[in-house]
Formats: sequence, C-alpha cells, structure tokens
Amino acid sequence: MTTTNREWILAERPRGEPDPGCFDLRETTVPDPGPGELLVRTRFLSVDPYMRGRMRDAESYAEPWDVGDALKGGVVGEVVESVSDVYDAGDLVTGEGTWSDYAVLDADDVAPVDPSVAPPEAHLGALGMPGRTAYFGLLEIGEPKPGDTVVVSGAAGAVGSVVGQIAKRNGCRVVGFAGSDEKTAWLTEDLGFDAAINYKTTDDYHAALDSAAPDGVDVYFDNVGGPITDAVFTELNLDARVAVCGQIAHYNAEEVPTGPRKLPGLIPVRARVEGLLVTDFASRFGEASERLGRWVASGELDHRETIVEGLANAPDAFLGLFDGDNIGKQVVRVSTANEE
Amino acid sequence: MTTTNREWILAERPRGEPDPGCFDLRETTVPDPGPGELLVRTRFLSVDPYMRGRMRDAESYAEPWDVGDALKGGVVGEVVESVSDVYDAGDLVTGEGTWSDYAVLDADDVAPVDPSVAPPEAHLGALGMPGRTAYFGLLEIGEPKPGDTVVVSGAAGAVGSVVGQIAKRNGCRVVGFAGSDEKTAWLTEDLGFDAAINYKTTDDYHAALDSAAPDGVDVYFDNVGGPITDAVFTELNLDARVAVCGQIAHYNAEEVPTGPRKLPGLIPVRARVEGLLVTDFASRFGEASERLGRWVASGELDHRETIVEGLANAPDAFLGLFDGDNIGKQVVRVSTANEE
Repeated sequence: MTTTNREWILAERPRGEPDPGCFDLRETTVPDPGPGELLVRTRFLSVDPYMRGRMRDAESYAEPWDVGDALKGGVVGEVVESVSDVYDAGDLVTGEGTWSDYAVLDADDVAPVDPSVAPPEAHLGALGMPGRTAYFGLLEIGEPKPGDTVVVSGAAGAVGSVVGQIAKRNGCRVVGFAGSDEKTAWLTEDLGFDAAINYKTTDDYHAALDSAAPDGVDVYFDNVGGPITDAVFTELNLDARVAVCGQIAHYNAEEVPTGPRKLPGLIPVRARVEGLLVTDFASRFGEASERLGRWVASGELDHRETIVEGLANAPDAFLGLFDGDNIGKQVVRVSTANEE
Repeated sequence: MTTTNREWILAERPRGEPDPGCFDLRETTVPDPGPGELLVRTRFLSVDPYMRGRMRDAESYAEPWDVGDALKGGVVGEVVESVSDVYDAGDLVTGEGTWSDYAVLDADDVAPVDPSVAPPEAHLGALGMPGRTAYFGLLEIGEPKPGDTVVVSGAAGAVGSVVGQIAKRNGCRVVGFAGSDEKTAWLTEDLGFDAAINYKTTDDYHAALDSAAPDGVDVYFDNVGGPITDAVFTELNLDARVAVCGQIAHYNAEEVPTGPRKLPGLIPVRARVEGLLVTDFASRFGEASERLGRWVASGELDHRETIVEGLANAPDAFLGLFDGDNIGKQVVRVSTANEE
C-alpha cells in the first residue's frame, strides 16, 4: 500500500467569490489509526454550499477552517485498517472526513454504508446529511398538510430534490425553482413536481408563481435567497411556514446584502420563518435514515448525483456549486473499489 | 338629548405620511338602535397604528376603509339607549365603534367595562386589544423562559409597555427601545425594565445592545421595524423567537422598503420569526382579560394613557402616533361622564 496521502488545505480566505487559489493540495503521509480508530480510504467526498461559511474567519454553527488546515467534509470510504471491533477492513463507512485520499476516523463517529440499498455516493446525498435536512426541515418546520402548496428553491439540488418528493408523498402541490431546463425537466418528469420554474430564463417570478402556485404558497423551503425568495414571500398564504435552509445567493457577499424588507409582510398572513440546521435533529437521525433508506430502496425516492472525477478536482466541484453545475448531490470520486 | 352626531370619514387616501386633509368631520344625526342593539355615546376612542393599513386600497387582515366611509375603531362608551336585555342605559361598554359622538353597536359585540378595576380608557389599552396583543404575542410566540433576555421595540407604547411587564413577571431581563428620555425613564423607573435605549439619541444600536443585553437576545417583540430591528436581529441567540407585531417605521412607505437581508442570519441561530395578529387568539380572550384585569386591579401591571381632548382632534391623535407623541395608549376623549 502506498504511504503517500494528499489533502486539500485552505491556502487563503476568499474575498467574495472563492477561486482555485484559495485551495492548495498538499502531499503528506497516510496517517496511522489509534485505538478505536479506522484508516479510511476515501471513495467519495461531499462538497456543500455551507462550506463557504467555513472559509470565513467568523464563528458560526460550523467551526471556521483555519488557513493551512486540511478541509473537512462528509466522505464515504473503505476501511483499510481497523483498530476497532466494530468495523473490519473492506467495510464501507460514512462520516466526517477530510478532502484527502486517506483519513483516520473514530469508529464511533461513522455509520456503515450498505451498497445494496444505493450506490455509495447516495449516502452523501439523499441518504446522507442533505436527505436528513430535507426530511426534518420539511416535516418539522414546513409542516406540510395534504393540499398545501410547497415551493422549493434550489429544487434540483441535493436537499431540494428530496424536499419536493417528500412533499408529494404528503399530498402537496409542489413547485420548484431551478436553474436549467434539464433540471426543471428532471423535477417534473422524473420526480413528480407539479411545476418547475427555470429562474434563469424567467423574467417575472411573480407571474410564474401565479401560474405555478395559483392558490398561493403554504410552505416555502428556501435553499437560495435573493430575488426568488423575494417573490415567494409576496405569495405566502395565511399561516405559511418558511424553512430557511440555505441562502446560497448570498454566501459570497462581502457586505450584508440588502433587499426588500420582509417583516411587514409577515403580519397580515402571520407567517412563520425559521432557520434550519439538521444537527438540531441529531437524536432522530435514525428515524430519517430508516425511512429515506426504505424509500430509496423501493424506488419511491429518486436521487441523482453529479460526480466530479478525482481529488485534484475537488475545488472545482465546490466552486461549481455556486454556478449551479450540479444536478442532485455534488460529489467527488476520489477512488474506486478495484483501484489499488 | 341632542340629535346631532359627528363622525370622521376618510376624505382621501394618503400617499406616504397621512395629513389632516385625509380626514373630514361630517355632521349627521344620531342613529336609532334596532332590536339587540345599543346606542352608545363615545367616551373614549382608540387610535392605533394598524389603522394606517386601513387607509390603503388593499386587502389585508383589516378591511380597508373606503373614501367617504365613517372611520372605525375601538371605543369605550356609555349606553344611552338599549334595545337589548343584556345592557341598560348608563352601562359602560367597549367594542368596535366609529370615530363619532354616538354609534349603534350590537349588544353581542360589546363587553362590559368595570370602572372599579381601572379608568374606562384603560379598557382600550392594557385591558383592551393592545394588552391582549402583548399577552398572546409574548407568551405564545415569544415563549419567554426565566433568564431569557427580551427586547421590545416601541416599548413605551400601548403594547410594548405591557409586553415588558409580563416578561418581567416571567423572570426575564427586559430591554426596551423608546423615543424619549421621559419614555425610557418610565420604562426603567416605573415599569421595572432592566434597561431602556432612547433610539433618537443613540447613534450605535449595536453598542447599546451589547451593553443592555450582554447575553444576547432570546426574544424580540417588534412593534417598529427599521434600523432598531436590523440591529436586534444581529444579536439573536440560538433558538431566538421574534414576534412581529407591528412595523410602524414602514407603514407610511409607498414603495416596498429595503434593508439588510435577515434570512441568512436566521440559519446559524435557527431563529423563528412569526407575524402576530391578536384576533388569532380570540377563543382565549377571556383568559387574557381575566389575568390582565387582575394584574391591573392589584397594581402589579402599570398602565398609562395619553389623552387627546375632543373628537375634533382625533386625526391629530392618530397622526401623532407616527411621531411617537404617545406614552402608553393613545386615546381620544370624546365625552365625559357628567357631560350632557
């Protein structure tokens, strides 16, 4: 086995839109697992919009990355060396790793991956953190009832695509905003969305919503922010619920972005707007994983991953999130099963 | 008894800030009550910020006033003629009347006023709709817990002054924003607020909050909007609750006002922001009235009314709300008990 490892580090903090110069690929050696630990060879690495926040020198829900630190992220990998009774070499696991070929993970902090349910990379998407985010955010904050109209921004992303499908299971009318005709076609033709709006080719979001959500909006699951969100807020129904999951339109802003004030509009409809972080539901992850796994295994829940090949291209995969390059979950394939 | 009545009508819809030309005082005749109705002579008339919304030609939670219509509002008055078994001439009642000397009210739609609990005008404030708004908004949306820091904007107003006192009862640290030193002194010296910030003489709301709310903000009860609210939102704690009760800073805006976007900031702290309308709690008004009445009667809940004399000055009383002329509840005295 090779003793060479590669890992991406934060080379410098971005100002505004990050670029490849923010990242540096460092050669190092494969680390040794201690008691209770596993040496894991990365198969797939997750890149996620929230990581933009970790590039800032500011406290938030996720610890900021320091310049020079190895970048962290969700991984699926194969155990190559185990100093734990729980896993054996050859097992597939998922957990929080680093942007690297190999990483040492605590056996207590990983979960087994069953490749018979879905391909390993799906455990970073519909069966991973994004799927759980969709599940709890929609059900616990959105509280969808049959007949409700649910609008999702970033609908063709890892979270949004699951949100819409669960809303359909709950008997809702589902409308998605996405950024290409290929994405909107996926939403309506494959995932069962009732309508999808290509926000890049639509001038008047209000008119598009009037047509796609003629009875107004009962639940808005927001991954994006910006003008889409501004329009949806004007269409909220009485007692509407808004789950604020992501605001990717604003993650690269250096100044506090401005926009139409939304609080005055909340009073007439008594809408509720709530920030969402999936870790708040950690005690119920088992419930979500069991259901999402069942729905994926039975084919009731569709999922899709956009795969960038090679650890060397991980920064490109991350930067592409801000251009909407991904359909479904964006992952990086770092190694394959039969690779040495 | 005189047969002449006077009533204010909407003369024209305002653009931006309303002015006296929007109102016209019309002479008419005292109406006759039908079966089940009461002829009520107005003692006190309530003017409220939400009425600005009724001057617009736009559907909202309160029906818009039409040009030429008599203006509506809460009143306390004396029954001068009763065609109902429930009330007798001489009884004091409160309900939704008009900006007039006399009005006919349905006996089913009024509540008795007990002047032994508090002066009649308090039934338009701490014991009326503003008091109930404070009660339900704070307790049901704010969900204050002992040790929480509760911030109130418009704290010396009819709603805010009650919010702060109920929050104190619940063991909270209470900070109010108000617009004069007389108001802030009332809050801290009489009502027991822990701190009060005169927003008109304070340049840096962030610094003022850092000092007045050093542990951050768990509950924000917002009557105002604008820069005060922008500052408070940056100080929200994990799982903070925001009750959006009023946004008086924006009621005269002709265009949708803009300001710093707040949704990105909700995610790290998972704050919940909810529009509040007291009528949603109508089935529980009895509970609120019983408790507020008890607290007022025992002197535990302080209240104050700013009285403008004479129906002729009702528009001035209303317009003064937007300049912060009132401390506590703004009312208009239309008649007195011993007046013929």
